[in-house]
Amino acid sequence: MNVINIAIIGGTGYTGVELLRLLAQHPKARVQAISSRAEAGRPVADLYPNLRGHYDLKFSHPDEGDFGRIDIVFFATPHGVAQSTVKSVLDKGARVIDLSADFRIRDIETWETWYAQDHQCPELVPEAVYGLPEVNRDEIKSAKLLACPGCYPTSIQLGLKPLLEIGGLINTQTIVANSASGATGAGRQANVDTLFTEVGDSFKPYAVGGHRHLPEIEQGLSDIAQSNVSLTFVPHLLPVNRGILSTIYVDLLDHSPTDFQALYEKAFENEYFVDVLPAGCQPSLRSVRGTNFCRISVVRPQGRDKLVITAVEDNLTKGASGQAIQNMNIMCGLDEYLGLNLVALMP
Amino acid sequence: MNVINIAIIGGTGYTGVELLRLLAQHPKARVQAISSRAEAGRPVADLYPNLRGHYDLKFSHPDEGDFGRIDIVFFATPHGVAQSTVKSVLDKGARVIDLSADFRIRDIETWETWYAQDHQCPELVPEAVYGLPEVNRDEIKSAKLLACPGCYPTSIQLGLKPLLEIGGLINTQTIVANSASGATGAGRQANVDTLFTEVGDSFKPYAVGGHRHLPEIEQGLSDIAQSNVSLTFVPHLLPVNRGILSTIYVDLLDHSPTDFQALYEKAFENEYFVDVLPAGCQPSLRSVRGTNFCRISVVRPQGRDKLVITAVEDNLTKGASGQAIQNMNIMCGLDEYLGLNLVALMP
Amino acid sequence: MNVINIAIIGGTGYTGVELLRLLAQHPKARVQAISSRAEAGRPVADLYPNLRGHYDLKFSHPDEGDFGRIDIVFFATPHGVAQSTVKSVLDKGARVIDLSADFRIRDIETWETWYAQDHQCPELVPEAVYGLPEVNRDEIKSAKLLACPGCYPTSIQLGLKPLLEIGGLINTQTIVANSASGATGAGRQANVDTLFTEVGDSFKPYAVGGHRHLPEIEQGLSDIAQSNVSLTFVPHLLPVNRGILSTIYVDLLDHSPTDFQALYEKAFENEYFVDVLPAGCQPSLRSVRGTNFCRISVVRPQGRDKLVITAVEDNLTKGASGQAIQNMNIMCGLDEYLGLNLVALMP
Amino acid sequence: MNVINIAIIGGTGYTGVELLRLLAQHPKARVQAISSRAEAGRPVADLYPNLRGHYDLKFSHPDEGDFGRIDIVFFATPHGVAQSTVKSVLDKGARVIDLSADFRIRDIETWETWYAQDHQCPELVPEAVYGLPEVNRDEIKSAKLLACPGCYPTSIQLGLKPLLEIGGLINTQTIVANSASGATGAGRQANVDTLFTEVGDSFKPYAVGGHRHLPEIEQGLSDIAQSNVSLTFVPHLLPVNRGILSTIYVDLLDHSPTDFQALYEKAFENEYFVDVLPAGCQPSLRSVRGTNFCRISVVRPQGRDKLVITAVEDNLTKGASGQAIQNMNIMCGLDEYLGLNLVALMP
Repeated sequence: MNVINIAIIGGTGYTGVELLRLLAQHPKARVQAISSRAEAGRPVADLYPNLRGHYDLKFSHPDEGDFGRIDIVFFATPHGVAQSTVKSVLDKGARVIDLSADFRIRDIETWETWYAQDHQCPELVPEAVYGLPEVNRDEIKSAKLLACPGCYPTSIQLGLKPLLEIGGLINTQTIVANSASGATGAGRQANVDTLFTEVGDSFKPYAVGGHRHLPEIEQGLSDIAQSNVSLTFVPHLLPVNRGILSTIYVDLLDHSPTDFQALYEKAFENEYFVDVLPAGCQPSLRSVRGTNFCRISVVRPQGRDKLVITAVEDNLTKGASGQAIQNMNIMCGLDEYLGLNLVALMP
Repeated sequence: MNVINIAIIGGTGYTGVELLRLLAQHPKARVQAISSRAEAGRPVADLYPNLRGHYDLKFSHPDEGDFGRIDIVFFATPHGVAQSTVKSVLDKGARVIDLSADFRIRDIETWETWYAQDHQCPELVPEAVYGLPEVNRDEIKSAKLLACPGCYPTSIQLGLKPLLEIGGLINTQTIVANSASGATGAGRQANVDTLFTEVGDSFKPYAVGGHRHLPEIEQGLSDIAQSNVSLTFVPHLLPVNRGILSTIYVDLLDHSPTDFQALYEKAFENEYFVDVLPAGCQPSLRSVRGTNFCRISVVRPQGRDKLVITAVEDNLTKGASGQAIQNMNIMCGLDEYLGLNLVALMP
Repeated sequence: MNVINIAIIGGTGYTGVELLRLLAQHPKARVQAISSRAEAGRPVADLYPNLRGHYDLKFSHPDEGDFGRIDIVFFATPHGVAQSTVKSVLDKGARVIDLSADFRIRDIETWETWYAQDHQCPELVPEAVYGLPEVNRDEIKSAKLLACPGCYPTSIQLGLKPLLEIGGLINTQTIVANSASGATGAGRQANVDTLFTEVGDSFKPYAVGGHRHLPEIEQGLSDIAQSNVSLTFVPHLLPVNRGILSTIYVDLLDHSPTDFQALYEKAFENEYFVDVLPAGCQPSLRSVRGTNFCRISVVRPQGRDKLVITAVEDNLTKGASGQAIQNMNIMCGLDEYLGLNLVALMP
Repeated sequence: MNVINIAIIGGTGYTGVELLRLLAQHPKARVQAISSRAEAGRPVADLYPNLRGHYDLKFSHPDEGDFGRIDIVFFATPHGVAQSTVKSVLDKGARVIDLSADFRIRDIETWETWYAQDHQCPELVPEAVYGLPEVNRDEIKSAKLLACPGCYPTSIQLGLKPLLEIGGLINTQTIVANSASGATGAGRQANVDTLFTEVGDSFKPYAVGGHRHLPEIEQGLSDIAQSNVSLTFVPHLLPVNRGILSTIYVDLLDHSPTDFQALYEKAFENEYFVDVLPAGCQPSLRSVRGTNFCRISVVRPQGRDKLVITAVEDNLTKGASGQAIQNMNIMCGLDEYLGLNLVALMP
């Protein structure tokens, strides 16, 4: 494939602009169209000045546009939108990468409970491939409809994969994931709760009683473990723009002195985007900012029976748009890291 | 007592300036002297412009100063300093409130291991009273040498007290405390790691293998439970100046549907500085900034067998200088909240 | 006057909660009512958790409430609201302190041009007293309707007063005021432009072509100078919550070596809330955070013919609610600093 | 030239890591050596985790290293270092790009006054080329010793160039440049004044009496105007990591209604890295973060006789390491934007 022709549906949000930032630097990608009902007709560089000089594109109306020549359609829409239009896009021959939650959860009833709406397209859910390349790269290659994982779920699944794919190491019913995310996770909606004046200089937990990502995470972890996994998950809101840190606590079953550092290094030795830090180092948000890397550390404090795993990612990149492009690369037979080998801004 | 005459030893750090801020607004306190080896002779308002108009005081040399007329001496010094001079101060008749870790841990060997130095005054350790008023107010009243609790330990002990003082509710061996602190917790030392450019726009765990506050927390929790308590404690560094949030995870032993909200409200109903939030609310750092309050929430997600407690405080106030003054009020027979009934700055 | 009975109209915004924070710590103030159309019936401490334990008050509907027993009514409403209701409040005998722009500008046409609406109560404009105590304290004492100055105008008028009240010192036609404000200046409206994700980690000018505060500033400066003053004013948005710094540049007319430091110290020697810093010191936002102080510095770089004045204030305190209470104290014959002698939070 | 072999002297500071970040993504650059006296032997990715996976390089001792095969040597050292070693590097045949101030100012006495040290290599100063490509691209092409401009000077010279290169438009003696910089401008030295706890949540001017960049800016502006230019320059410290915004005020001499928007667009129409925003738009720091762009806006408020120019850049990129690489590209006959066509991270 010489050039990948791309359309983005719903491009005014932060995952939309992040797709545009990354695709501008991708040698094989050509963004042919980007839609927005509200901003139709407006140049994208007008809404996002960082794109000035990189794109001449204007937002188009979602109902317009000829998808015949499009290879990949990214949905960067709110939950509930992709499910009503994906079918017609697939029928025109394009492959779909959906960044929303619409096709992540296999159990329709669970999805409807957590997202508080009826699912408009349950028949396509079984065909959707969950796009976490480090877990199911093979199925991704031929996916027609790819469900890109959520931001929190990516960090937690990568953080636990080495422990869960080997049975009997940890208690799979008592896992705790304490996560903190930058404010871009809340999107670009006008909302008093996410004003600078409300988020700045503060820190707080939210959705302690239950967050929508919980069923997705438990499904993913159970798939890896091939048995039921139960998790306590508490997200927090950080006064930074980008980044997720998940601090994960597990109870060890096997109390023998396993070399977890070696286990993790081995598990990810062929993964370009997963970086197991040397023993004694802890990952920081800024070490992955703007990149598709997930950096992971594993510690057994005082040799006791809890293991602490910390995993960082950029929620807009590996947690959303970067992972979407990583999936695109796999689906199109390109090098997985093409256009994604960026260096994090530091400081 | 009409007026409390006060001296502060080591006043250039952040707990020093916080003592000065609070004492300037205390109706019974008169700061007679504040010492600093490095800044002797310099007006305090020159180093801390927020004090302009509130103090005429200059820093004095620690070896000077007549402690005969002093009622209370606060030590706002690095660990290891108070233990070499406390004795002479006590001999002159003043009572001591030590904000450092020197007298917090009863087991000398444990202290020496975690603080990597010999203890200079082990004979006074048994006399020192641990100054967490919500736990041992009665002993504080008559204390001559008071050891003010650490910042992380305060939030975690308050967060767990209602559960631990009743036996059999939770597994005391599997508690997790995931804490995050503002950068003032690292003090005012010139250090590359705490530059704005290193802390800003980031977030990271530290001391995952073991933090000095761990033995203090375990000692305090074990005292409350009257049995051994074991904890996994992971601190994180937030890009904010002030505040600590501890998110605490415990395994319930008694699986019957206890009303934990009621348990917490009852446990703290007479505590001025502990505020149990209504069910459904979560505390934020900024709701306590600059104040001596600790706000707490308790949730049992999905009715499963983990309980999640969140507790916030200002690390410089309830976590250090505010609690020191609360202790002073108790020791001097004043209303516990005198000079401390401040309203948090918001936003 | 033993106790001042107070009502606040429109209390859900940031100037409203700042009034509540300050009045909670004021020994003579009793807030009897606070209204909000949107939040009527809700406890104020529910919306603003920092007020928990300090107020039992609920928001009332603006149309309810008996103003017979009220001494002072604060309007903390958007521009355009006070002008339609002030008359009825005054008729009931209460005095009004309006924090909005409704009565700040004497020329009705100018007001209507900059605020893009018709003025509903032009007949009361001549009676309104402009509430900058350091400029017209005497008229404030007997004011029935007080127009509290804007945040930017306060810092710029205080910064220039010593130069303008003496004729012939500076060119009054070429003044530049380069100001930067924290995000609370934009209020608490849901708005994409003031999301954390839009303001954080950035800095930008706005309203360069003309900001609503320009006519107010020029009117105030002209009053001080007793001649026409012209100003170039450019505001900027800072990624902090609170604070305004105005950096003011003036062309000196008299090129003799005036001692501007002495001039400024003399001009403000009796002002409790204006602090002229020692030569060589520059003010920082945080040195006034949460307080009613304005700190000022004056420098003549390289002895050339420009003078640089820098002035900081907290935009919500001296720039709004604190100044409103300072005015209330003056109007009620109390010590001007009563309840306002707070120490800034630092760091 | 197929590959440019590069050495970096003094690579532990923020301009060093920024060079490494940018050069990692440059298709023709190969970093052969990077020196640091303090960190010799340590892998660069150990000090800067964002470089993990991008470099295998270790810091070398500055006295070691064979410069025979090196084409370009970057000095990312503190002021005063390059001047003592540049000569020997040039003798070995490499070309030098100095990011420090050592060779920026032609008048030795002026340099010695402002930098408070003797110049060690005055004989090379006349040969040094000032590396602001938008002003003197032609001389840069053949430079052996290139003096990279300071961060503030870059933004101010670009902001004023269109006005100064045409005579008679503005008063060249009354220009004001009000600049604000992120904290990376202060470097990576351990220093109480640049701790997170001192810079965060604040804003303040500094060096109001005179900043070292003043003589460099006045020299540069005078070169452009071909006559003496005098400037009042006040820098401020922003609580962000990266970015400079200069707000520039000039007095118009020609009061006829010149179309300054057109003038600016024309002046920079062929400049890849200078972006004149459409009328009505103002630049923000974040629109250039991590990139080599300078975005500029020009406004004449109310049609009066002051013109306001605002210019933003990333102080570490266009203000330092990015501009250094832009110069390298020019010196090596490559496309000026090679490896530098990055899209800013937003948000």
